[in-house]
Amino acid sequence: MCLAAIALVAAQAQEVSSPDGNVSVKFSLSPSGQPTYEMTYKGKQIIKPSHLGFQLARDKHASKGMDETDLLNGFTLAGSRTSTFDEAWQPVWGQYKDIRNHYNEMEVSLRQPATDRNIIIRFRVYDDGMGLRYEFPLQSALNYFIIKEECTQFAMPGDIRAWWQAGDYDTQEYPIQETHLSGIRPAITHCVAFDDKGKCHRRTDYIEDRMRDAVVWDNASQTIFSPTGVQTSIQLVTDDNLYINLPEAACVDYATMHLNLDERTMTFTSWLTPDATGYKGCMQAPCKTPWRTVLVSDDARDMLASSLILNLNEPCAIEDVSWIHPTKYCGVWWEMIVGRGAWNYTDEFPSVKLGQTDYTKAKPNGRHKANTEEVKKYIDFAAKNGLDQVLIEGWNIGWEDWACMWKNDVFDFVTPYPDFDLKGLNDYAHSRGVKLMMHHETSSSVINYERHMEQAYQLMNDYGYDAVKSGYVGDIIPRGDYHYSQSMNNHYLYAVKEAAKHHIMVNAHEASRPTGLCRTWPNLVGNESARGTEYEAFYGSKPSHTVTLPFTRLQGGPMDFTPGIFETQLNTWSDNQHNVHSTLTGQLALYLVMWSPLQMAADLPENYAKYDDAFQFIRDVACDWDDSRYIDASPGKYITVARKAKGTDNWFVGGKCDEDGHEVTVKLDFLDKGRKYECTIYADAKDAHYETNPKAYVITHKVVKAGDTLKLTEAPGGGFAISLLAK
Amino acid sequence: MCLAAIALVAAQAQEVSSPDGNVSVKFSLSPSGQPTYEMTYKGKQIIKPSHLGFQLARDKHASKGMDETDLLNGFTLAGSRTSTFDEAWQPVWGQYKDIRNHYNEMEVSLRQPATDRNIIIRFRVYDDGMGLRYEFPLQSALNYFIIKEECTQFAMPGDIRAWWQAGDYDTQEYPIQETHLSGIRPAITHCVAFDDKGKCHRRTDYIEDRMRDAVVWDNASQTIFSPTGVQTSIQLVTDDNLYINLPEAACVDYATMHLNLDERTMTFTSWLTPDATGYKGCMQAPCKTPWRTVLVSDDARDMLASSLILNLNEPCAIEDVSWIHPTKYCGVWWEMIVGRGAWNYTDEFPSVKLGQTDYTKAKPNGRHKANTEEVKKYIDFAAKNGLDQVLIEGWNIGWEDWACMWKNDVFDFVTPYPDFDLKGLNDYAHSRGVKLMMHHETSSSVINYERHMEQAYQLMNDYGYDAVKSGYVGDIIPRGDYHYSQSMNNHYLYAVKEAAKHHIMVNAHEASRPTGLCRTWPNLVGNESARGTEYEAFYGSKPSHTVTLPFTRLQGGPMDFTPGIFETQLNTWSDNQHNVHSTLTGQLALYLVMWSPLQMAADLPENYAKYDDAFQFIRDVACDWDDSRYIDASPGKYITVARKAKGTDNWFVGGKCDEDGHEVTVKLDFLDKGRKYECTIYADAKDAHYETNPKAYVITHKVVKAGDTLKLTEAPGGGFAISLLAK
Repeated sequence: MCLAAIALVAAQAQEVSSPDGNVSVKFSLSPSGQPTYEMTYKGKQIIKPSHLGFQLARDKHASKGMDETDLLNGFTLAGSRTSTFDEAWQPVWGQYKDIRNHYNEMEVSLRQPATDRNIIIRFRVYDDGMGLRYEFPLQSALNYFIIKEECTQFAMPGDIRAWWQAGDYDTQEYPIQETHLSGIRPAITHCVAFDDKGKCHRRTDYIEDRMRDAVVWDNASQTIFSPTGVQTSIQLVTDDNLYINLPEAACVDYATMHLNLDERTMTFTSWLTPDATGYKGCMQAPCKTPWRTVLVSDDARDMLASSLILNLNEPCAIEDVSWIHPTKYCGVWWEMIVGRGAWNYTDEFPSVKLGQTDYTKAKPNGRHKANTEEVKKYIDFAAKNGLDQVLIEGWNIGWEDWACMWKNDVFDFVTPYPDFDLKGLNDYAHSRGVKLMMHHETSSSVINYERHMEQAYQLMNDYGYDAVKSGYVGDIIPRGDYHYSQSMNNHYLYAVKEAAKHHIMVNAHEASRPTGLCRTWPNLVGNESARGTEYEAFYGSKPSHTVTLPFTRLQGGPMDFTPGIFETQLNTWSDNQHNVHSTLTGQLALYLVMWSPLQMAADLPENYAKYDDAFQFIRDVACDWDDSRYIDASPGKYITVARKAKGTDNWFVGGKCDEDGHEVTVKLDFLDKGRKYECTIYADAKDAHYETNPKAYVITHKVVKAGDTLKLTEAPGGGFAISLLAK
Repeated sequence: MCLAAIALVAAQAQEVSSPDGNVSVKFSLSPSGQPTYEMTYKGKQIIKPSHLGFQLARDKHASKGMDETDLLNGFTLAGSRTSTFDEAWQPVWGQYKDIRNHYNEMEVSLRQPATDRNIIIRFRVYDDGMGLRYEFPLQSALNYFIIKEECTQFAMPGDIRAWWQAGDYDTQEYPIQETHLSGIRPAITHCVAFDDKGKCHRRTDYIEDRMRDAVVWDNASQTIFSPTGVQTSIQLVTDDNLYINLPEAACVDYATMHLNLDERTMTFTSWLTPDATGYKGCMQAPCKTPWRTVLVSDDARDMLASSLILNLNEPCAIEDVSWIHPTKYCGVWWEMIVGRGAWNYTDEFPSVKLGQTDYTKAKPNGRHKANTEEVKKYIDFAAKNGLDQVLIEGWNIGWEDWACMWKNDVFDFVTPYPDFDLKGLNDYAHSRGVKLMMHHETSSSVINYERHMEQAYQLMNDYGYDAVKSGYVGDIIPRGDYHYSQSMNNHYLYAVKEAAKHHIMVNAHEASRPTGLCRTWPNLVGNESARGTEYEAFYGSKPSHTVTLPFTRLQGGPMDFTPGIFETQLNTWSDNQHNVHSTLTGQLALYLVMWSPLQMAADLPENYAKYDDAFQFIRDVACDWDDSRYIDASPGKYITVARKAKGTDNWFVGGKCDEDGHEVTVKLDFLDKGRKYECTIYADAKDAHYETNPKAYVITHKVVKAGDTLKLTEAPGGGFAISLLAK
């Protein structure tokens, strides 16, 4: 029946292809007037015929266009228009100096005669994929509406292999799984079960493997909604090695999208994050949705090299970007993560209240690390090693009972603990050419954060901070909202825009996974929005994790992954019994593989002191690039990339692999011809192994030139880093 | 069984009486350890044995004291302590110059040994009633908790008569009903039915009488939760004429309380307003609930004269109160309410967006009243008649689609329409000795209001506004919250506190019914929080309404009722076919009967011009008082009150009645002995009637002295006003 229907309308289909002709998107209306699209790559079907549309909610204010009639079918084609666009633009920071935005566009105007409503579906087709979005023009019959669900389908070409993370409204910090699509349900239901109301519970018979399982039940805030729900971006590969990726782009004032799989047809359908009432979006025409995108290539490297997501975002909205800069930093952080220090100043009170608890009279717990003496050590370390900034977590009052207590007024973002000399430390840092980096943990009490935001940013201006790491641990206040609800996406962007007014760069942790908004707001220099290094100190991540994230999480923008842990065996210097699942040089590789304009040297100064020869790479490596060349890549297995440092002729190469090790030959064909380069190779020693011998490395110095070849061997869970400094 | 249990514990009961001994409160624990209290007045049982306690919610963060064990029973008495308090204090404004706060207190400390938790129940007993509240001291076993429901009972002494309003989470603008308690359910279910999920629906067979029915289905936001739910304050009277009133006091960071009736036992139980998740409060010890209070007297006048609610609030928190002043105002308002003008500037667009809609190019609709020319007329009128301020609604952009559309960014509170000269009008007003009054309709988009609040208040400072009328029409954003949720009560107070920093007085409409917080924050000069004059232009209110509100709504603080409509027959000057259900002099009486430091002369200057002799009373009347004497009062029937203007020897007397008319003799025994007073009486003419002959009045001038007697006759729906100016 379904095939017949598709065949019937084929004659009326609208079609648009990529500039190189490899990617084609066909749009048609089913006999019932249901918008439908399909997509091919080099003639092969990538997205099978898939429907588009919306279920709308009947609101209690049903007047003025708030009607329950869905936008699913009954459409007629009112017109279509194709056009071509080609321009080059320069990002403020990123993988490339210049980015080409070259696509063919098809604008399909649809009319639902029974309701007198009009929508537009816009397709942009690139050589490496396509984006589609819905647009709702100004009109009297569709003015305000509430989305019950977006119904955008992605019908997969079969039960293909996927790297995916369990769908969740509140966390994206799960391990990434590799299964066929049919393996999603077993993996999720291995850990959790759903009750009659669709609410998710941890299975009573489940003995968790926190590092390996799809769903862990430990995050401060988590809301799994379906046994076949996954997050975007999901990386896929067909049996004939076509790589497919499903990210979203330009999510503004709209809920974050998940995908829910129907295994009978291997079709993903969009599943938006609801608000506290269960509905998924309040819209006012004229408006548009984020882009729903499909990356495709027969070369896995193209998944990493693509700028499609950035291209689908709006140009930079900030006129003067001179204050936005790449930043290398260290900080008072890892010591607390591993458990050797504390964010809070005192253990004296069962609970504390802003403005009531007198910290000056409180008994210090002796474990508070954000103290003047300790911070000075980090400032000295940063100054000595050319790091730009020092992050200090736990500097401000409120950490005694900050998380998951449904407290509104957790932090004021301006009052330091008695042992943190706010002015003195900033003065000291500045005198040494270093800036302090602000930390705003909001505890997800968003109302409280917005009330204090202006004063908090003003304090940063007053003392000379120009970057903030913000955090959203725990359940959202206003209660009932989720981390990825429309209102929260609205908030995260509000915080970035307000920061821009103060010339402040933002690195928001636990915020929604980015969708390329850093093109428009380049002061959004980082996000966490995935399982970062901290989990190594909790339960661990598999070595494959860092060669999977660039295919998934990094599609939308850089991640503050906090690499650079040299003392990977944590029990050698703390009571933490976990190991970081990487060799030491594998950690160095992350500065290339996990590109970001914001890079932390996350380990302790005393640990770096033990391996100062290897630390030279962190001193040298850039974090902003004129060019990037992916040398080889396979999702979850290995990634090798060479990058040219911004404004220089220096190149850096990094390679990282999973637990199986990897060999790669790097042809230095990207170097300037006729020029010589001082080459330093930081490689795993022969017997290195992420579990048994992680700190065995060899540093080799040589002089190289364009056309030379380097053979690198990465140990299991290992990697390498190379600096190529133009002589 | 129940009676037996009560008898059993009588021996162990704790008891405390009022200073005059008339009111007694007895506390006891049931055999199961359930806290129980009862209350008598002059030996008669007012509150039968009633239980106290809480159901707590099991939160997903069950650690650290967030436990599901209820605070209902299993208590033991850990101690009790009584004390006496007696002081006089001076409110910044109000009914009296001095207020005596004289009570006997009993603090009952309870311990729940099974959970190691402690609570305190504090009783304060006054000559005219009592208050009780729960306190949660700092302790490790009860640190953070979520209230599923507060279970405070008020067991009534029978099926007594009550003046009540249907319980609702979002509106308190229903007509007030007078029935026996057993009449509550029939009245509510006459209009609405409840489905399986407890959701309220308008009955399909219900033909509404919007003026008379308990429940109207017209408010922009309404959420009726129970067929026997009522709002506080509820006025009651026993068959032997004991007056009982159940208000709450000092509701801070806590949900507004409703009362739900169990008709089998005629017992009210507290029913808090939930948040978006359905739970009713997030608490952190040390903390306390609002006061649950019972006023009692055998004289109805004591219900109106009581200062118990103010006494149970905290003292003034504002050091310099010199900028807070009584205010008489007129404004651009009634003309829009009756439908002769519009708040919005243009009808050109199906919807508008801040920062996108270009109003300078929009076609004016010609009905926009907040225009420079019109406002100047009001400024001239205010200046000529000694009114302090002019309110202008609709001055700022955004009114084209402001209500009930789930728009976030409805208003920016700073941008005037093109035809409103913000600077010019303020300058003009100030040159004439008048201030403009700011208007902030929030459209209940609270996130948006808080984001703009600082700038909005700053604009007021810049232009010389010192008072704002704020509004909360429509459903609350964050979605899922209600007008009376804990978070919203938190917001309303936040707005008042932030205003205080800017020396701004607040008059918040649609905000939670007040609970005496104006003692602590006297810049909260008014609230609406009940059915005001505007409803006369919609569907009307019964004449009894204005002699009921002082018994119910006004318990918590003054109401911006907007009295003074002289041209009560609206179709004589507009297309509105409704009449105000009052005689003209009945409107004058409201300036006394509905006391407030903020009083509007709500009619149009052109209407006042027709009755300038009567308008003299509005020119003369004060709105702040050194003393108040209730001469007679009966709920829903009549109220007569004499008040002494602040800082003067002038007195004003007002009398208002229901549709039955009223006769009252006013003995001028309150006047200064030996002094003469210029007495002007504004009274209904003999044949006056609120429906058939509302504007028939007689003005009498005479000179009077202490001890003289005035006989006044109020027409049906009528009233009188008297000024007594010391010679």
